[in-house]
Amino acid sequence: MSKNLTTRSEDYSKWYNELIVKADLAENSGVRGCMVIKPYGFAIWEKMQAELDRMFKETGHQNAYFPLFIPKSYFSKEASHVDGFAKECAVVTHYRLKNDEDGGIIVDPDAKLEEELIVRPTSETIIWDTYRKWIQSYRDLPILVNQWANVVRWEMRTRLFLRTSEFLWQEGHTAHATEAEAIAEAEQMMRVYATFAQDFMAMPVIKGTKTESERFAGAIETYCIEAMMQDGKALQAGTSHFLGQNFAKAFDVKFAAKDGGQEHVWATSWGVSTRLMGALVMTHSDDNGLVLPPNLAPIQVVIVPIYRGEDQLDAISQIAKELQRELQLQGVSVKFDDRDTHKPGWKFNEYELKGVPLRIAIGPRDLEKRTVELARRDTLTKEIVSKDNIVDRVRELLKEMQKSMFKKAKEYRDEHITEVDTYDEFKQVLEEKGGFISAFWDGTTETEEKIKDETKATIRCIPLKAKEENGTCMYSGKPAQKRVLFAKAY
Amino acid sequence: MSKNLTTRSEDYSKWYNELIVKADLAENSGVRGCMVIKPYGFAIWEKMQAELDRMFKETGHQNAYFPLFIPKSYFSKEASHVDGFAKECAVVTHYRLKNDEDGGIIVDPDAKLEEELIVRPTSETIIWDTYRKWIQSYRDLPILVNQWANVVRWEMRTRLFLRTSEFLWQEGHTAHATEAEAIAEAEQMMRVYATFAQDFMAMPVIKGTKTESERFAGAIETYCIEAMMQDGKALQAGTSHFLGQNFAKAFDVKFAAKDGGQEHVWATSWGVSTRLMGALVMTHSDDNGLVLPPNLAPIQVVIVPIYRGEDQLDAISQIAKELQRELQLQGVSVKFDDRDTHKPGWKFNEYELKGVPLRIAIGPRDLEKRTVELARRDTLTKEIVSKDNIVDRVRELLKEMQKSMFKKAKEYRDEHITEVDTYDEFKQVLEEKGGFISAFWDGTTETEEKIKDETKATIRCIPLKAKEENGTCMYSGKPAQKRVLFAKAY
Repeated sequence: MSKNLTTRSEDYSKWYNELIVKADLAENSGVRGCMVIKPYGFAIWEKMQAELDRMFKETGHQNAYFPLFIPKSYFSKEASHVDGFAKECAVVTHYRLKNDEDGGIIVDPDAKLEEELIVRPTSETIIWDTYRKWIQSYRDLPILVNQWANVVRWEMRTRLFLRTSEFLWQEGHTAHATEAEAIAEAEQMMRVYATFAQDFMAMPVIKGTKTESERFAGAIETYCIEAMMQDGKALQAGTSHFLGQNFAKAFDVKFAAKDGGQEHVWATSWGVSTRLMGALVMTHSDDNGLVLPPNLAPIQVVIVPIYRGEDQLDAISQIAKELQRELQLQGVSVKFDDRDTHKPGWKFNEYELKGVPLRIAIGPRDLEKRTVELARRDTLTKEIVSKDNIVDRVRELLKEMQKSMFKKAKEYRDEHITEVDTYDEFKQVLEEKGGFISAFWDGTTETEEKIKDETKATIRCIPLKAKEENGTCMYSGKPAQKRVLFAKAY
Repeated sequence: MSKNLTTRSEDYSKWYNELIVKADLAENSGVRGCMVIKPYGFAIWEKMQAELDRMFKETGHQNAYFPLFIPKSYFSKEASHVDGFAKECAVVTHYRLKNDEDGGIIVDPDAKLEEELIVRPTSETIIWDTYRKWIQSYRDLPILVNQWANVVRWEMRTRLFLRTSEFLWQEGHTAHATEAEAIAEAEQMMRVYATFAQDFMAMPVIKGTKTESERFAGAIETYCIEAMMQDGKALQAGTSHFLGQNFAKAFDVKFAAKDGGQEHVWATSWGVSTRLMGALVMTHSDDNGLVLPPNLAPIQVVIVPIYRGEDQLDAISQIAKELQRELQLQGVSVKFDDRDTHKPGWKFNEYELKGVPLRIAIGPRDLEKRTVELARRDTLTKEIVSKDNIVDRVRELLKEMQKSMFKKAKEYRDEHITEVDTYDEFKQVLEEKGGFISAFWDGTTETEEKIKDETKATIRCIPLKAKEENGTCMYSGKPAQKRVLFAKAY
């Protein structure tokens, strides 16, 4: 197997692109900007989906499915929404092809749609057009719906998982009788995302709100979770929006209130996408390949036999299969790789590249001594474990790795939050160290835009934990109440 | 609640349309031909997905994801495929909208795609274009991949679940080193579908192959499972195709064989869709609403309290919640509907309409006697059960209902297979009784087409179980070897 990855220090971006492809996560397709998610990558996404779906259902949500296409006119109904989304999108204009005179196929000009259809970049409009039919009275509220879907946002410069023209995501869309209830829902989903990121992805995140200019198009408030990648760039990992009554007004969705009278419905929407795959890779992986947290690894343990001849393989296989069964009974996913087409060294490399948390090697000497060699992907350390203790040790290590990967990522993240008080300091830290920079900001879009233009850094979030202080904006020198987090971002 | 369903005997088609909407399964959207799958309907689809996905994985398949869009030129590469699929489809021609002078939004003529993109009607072409990169040697085979996806086939006349322009499905696409292995795969997946239909949907199906004219565009052989609906019309519930080397040749996918030399890869593809939801409804439901088999019911048991005043409700709630917990521990999904906004009679109607298999009612007299009333949806029968026996009785009844729904559907189906030997008899049975008609056919497309033109009946399949006989085609009088099954079909 050719590992030969570019290292992170050589070229972080190239390292990422190579790793995604070599570890069999995804690849570019013949369609501009659209990726193929390969089985190994998709298995990780399925684990993410399963956990998120469970968390959504535990918080009272149900899944549904809405159309892929949205009539063009729907977008015009919410003014800020159309500017944010409808412009860079795939437009369906015809519904038929036909043969031309040369036997080729062309678009049939007679099959032009009366109204063009947009491939959904997000589904607020089509969903609120539907909710109008579902909601008459306060008894019909709340509606707590999620959908797992593909969406398309036409992107000029794409990168696997991080920015693709088509991506997979979930989008929750809820409807409420009161403002307070909708805000509570939006905040709850931000917390659900944060819990998922920390407990499953082993990725620390900062919870906060977006500034006006970074808000979702059509939102009153956007809550977000922000993560820090190993190259010092931030990544927005999930957003949850309080939409106020904007979409209810645009689509005329009212309900008969308990105390009489017609009121507009309050809304939220929230989503995470296959972008999380990119975040997962960039949070933990190293120059040898992927490092996957045990809670999301499709294969948690791989067993590799080291043998000469059929007799040794038979003896080792017997032990390996017994061990596999025992571990599976404990809910551990185990692969026994007894392929004779590849050597052990090749396999070691392959599973390192693919980030399998634990590797068990069993050789002839282990047979004699009733031991196995256990190797840990995150630290690359090895230990010899007695066969009698191996099941317990594996379970223990999987838990420990999940914790220690989070701890390591959190230490890195915490080291990459720098408080600065002047703009010069700001630019220096941004240039030399990267990471989040915590600084006072005067709260104006004007200052935010100027900093962005001059440094490419944006305000990632106003942390929920930010305390009220009497400060001075590092850029304008005007009074400022809170430190916000700046960073260059994916 | 307004049940007031049209009855099946009044107007079967109207009954179906009303039921789908009133039972909260799906509804039409603002986009022509595209449906909204509502939470209750989607919960059934999720149960189908979960079981099918498990069966696919148990037979060695992995999930992956391929692009939504397919470049137009890809379709031209497999000649019969383009005729079958690429013509009635959604065509993306532009990638941007812009504001016009009046502030409206229009398609930006400057953002025209060089090559149009087709929204996938099925994914053979994009997948085989990808497999070319994945397959070099026999070591890379077999590839056993499935994807869960949305697809679009432009339909002029649509019906919820049965024929919609966008629908959800799974499509398996496998690549093999030998013809025999690919045929075995295609046959295996037909059997997996049949097992799913019978064990989960409680729907009997006939396994068979399609005639040449009914085959998938690009297939050498199409295997299918055919079901019989309550109105005597057949429904194709799933297909599995042996594609030969057609797509490998069209997309130049070769592999280095074990014994040297380059060979084209052998292929299969297989799929079932949200159409199964329509089949499920039409197989079991009655004039009171849905009848769901326990194995696919999102709510298997509903508990309805019958009470006056808070005290009675409290006492009943205590028992109901205890019972709910006990049943949940046994893996039974239970809803306790203690809403005070609706009366018991309304709730009885609602859960009948939604096909919940078992209903438990608990009233004040049950409190005294330590009993509950248990009602069964399929037979509409009731029994009084002692509180001590209720958990066992529920479990027993759920199993029994699953079996007896299958038995009832199979009896109906078997009664609706009629052997005929003359064309007059054929037309009479088709007109008066419907169902499958088993008749000798001379094997020519010409005869098949004439019968179709004259009667609207098509050959649903050549049953795998059909025995070799010396017969005479009922239409042409020519020699015929097998009886095939004709029917009018959805």
